[in-house]
Amino acid sequence: MNKEAFFSYLEERKSLIEKTLEATIPLASNERRSVYEAMRYSLLAGGKRIRPILCLASAEAVGGEITSVLPVACAIECIHTYSLIHDDLPAMDNDDFRRGRPTCHRAFGEGLAILAGDALLTEAFAMIAQAGLAHPNKAHMFLRVTKAIAQAAGVEGMVGGQVMDIESEGKGLLFSTLEEMHRLKTGAMIRVSVFSGAYLGGGTEGEISALEEYGGHLGLAFQIADDILNVIGDKNLMGKTTGSDASRGKPTFPSLLGLEESKRKLEEEVLKSLEAISGFDEKADPLRHLATYVMEREH
Amino acid sequence: MNKEAFFSYLEERKSLIEKTLEATIPLASNERRSVYEAMRYSLLAGGKRIRPILCLASAEAVGGEITSVLPVACAIECIHTYSLIHDDLPAMDNDDFRRGRPTCHRAFGEGLAILAGDALLTEAFAMIAQAGLAHPNKAHMFLRVTKAIAQAAGVEGMVGGQVMDIESEGKGLLFSTLEEMHRLKTGAMIRVSVFSGAYLGGGTEGEISALEEYGGHLGLAFQIADDILNVIGDKNLMGKTTGSDASRGKPTFPSLLGLEESKRKLEEEVLKSLEAISGFDEKADPLRHLATYVMEREH
Repeated sequence: MNKEAFFSYLEERKSLIEKTLEATIPLASNERRSVYEAMRYSLLAGGKRIRPILCLASAEAVGGEITSVLPVACAIECIHTYSLIHDDLPAMDNDDFRRGRPTCHRAFGEGLAILAGDALLTEAFAMIAQAGLAHPNKAHMFLRVTKAIAQAAGVEGMVGGQVMDIESEGKGLLFSTLEEMHRLKTGAMIRVSVFSGAYLGGGTEGEISALEEYGGHLGLAFQIADDILNVIGDKNLMGKTTGSDASRGKPTFPSLLGLEESKRKLEEEVLKSLEAISGFDEKADPLRHLATYVMEREH
Repeated sequence: MNKEAFFSYLEERKSLIEKTLEATIPLASNERRSVYEAMRYSLLAGGKRIRPILCLASAEAVGGEITSVLPVACAIECIHTYSLIHDDLPAMDNDDFRRGRPTCHRAFGEGLAILAGDALLTEAFAMIAQAGLAHPNKAHMFLRVTKAIAQAAGVEGMVGGQVMDIESEGKGLLFSTLEEMHRLKTGAMIRVSVFSGAYLGGGTEGEISALEEYGGHLGLAFQIADDILNVIGDKNLMGKTTGSDASRGKPTFPSLLGLEESKRKLEEEVLKSLEAISGFDEKADPLRHLATYVMEREH
């Protein structure tokens, strides 16, 4: 797979995921219309769809088909979107813009934004359960995926990372604590995206554990890239304020390691992620390209 | 079962549920300690534990045992607690007191309160999945319960009811809309508590549907009682501000129907709930007592 084929692959997958999300959370014309609008405003706002794409690509890497994995991939994107909505709230990061548009609470008010986030998180689990019910012989597997995703999203995963994040503002942080924070805040959901796809796709234990290692390094790389972009990124491409971490006194990889060392570390993590899946055949090519994509992305 | 035996039963069940909750969400001594404290502050703050008790009692009513149902009952209580934390936030009901203590955001700050709620909701699904994995021959049943609980908690359930609630402040509401709002906001989770217990307890389709009807009427009765208590309740017994609905211009049963008619309606719903389970034997006695308890409670 060359770069051009990879970009078509990305577009095609993005489109598949967005069509599924669009159909899963339709715009209801009942008394809850406002919250559906808020959910869809954030869910269908573009975004790179990295997590669901990773989930599908991991299923393919182990030779699985993606039909039964697609609802899980979309559930993961719902969880990711809920976390963005809540993280942007005034009581958290207090961000006014996301993907070039006003954040959910700026567009719909705080109350509705909190509820839209709550609803997306909740619907995610309904979606996974629904997909599991459609595959009775895999019920046990879907329960395991439910548990893994809930743990990755919960207090010893994404939520816990966000707790560390809001409590770290203006404080010095050990490098090891910064790494731990990102392992939870970003890494856990990226890792579980890979796990869910590989596991439901029928991967062997060895394949799954190699892919999880890939996911662990990729997650860290992803966060380092994010931190670097917050320093040197183009505000227009990013669709949000750059330089905000520094002005808030947020510990980041560049603030702790410096920009050059952060770039070196980013490259190292990407190389480690590639190394982890070196035993896979060309079915893992999208995963390989994704790792490089993370390093080279401009927004 | 006489009233005295019922009150011992309530106490014994409350204690079983609280011990399980306490063990399920232990106080971690890691960097996420603050959010565990916030979760436990709200989760272990007392409360009547009506929903998990209903869940267990419904399993017993169909002759089931409660061991495998207990984690689901506790997950439902986690979801209920998360909803209280988020409903109390400044952007929603802006309540300072709950169960006689400062609300979660008053005690821990808004950011941590939002995250504690998010974490409780997320952990709830981990708990259900975990319980299902311990009963491999019932995996499919646990997926069905996951889906039912997610739907009851989501945008066409509790969250949707809360949306209607915050949007109704200061507005006139049709009585039918008020009923719909409460059917979603309170009713859906009470109904699914009964469903989950009865279904996992091995109830027949007829038993489950009779119990769901019981739950539907009980949920409405519960909300009417809540509204009445907000008007005439003893602030000290309630542990929160009374009269707050009226001062906020919230549509309630008393504001739409008057106090006397609300009391009549409450009695009618309780009678209907009892009627729905008239075909059950004495194993449903706790459910019968619970219905009367809802009508007679003073806080």
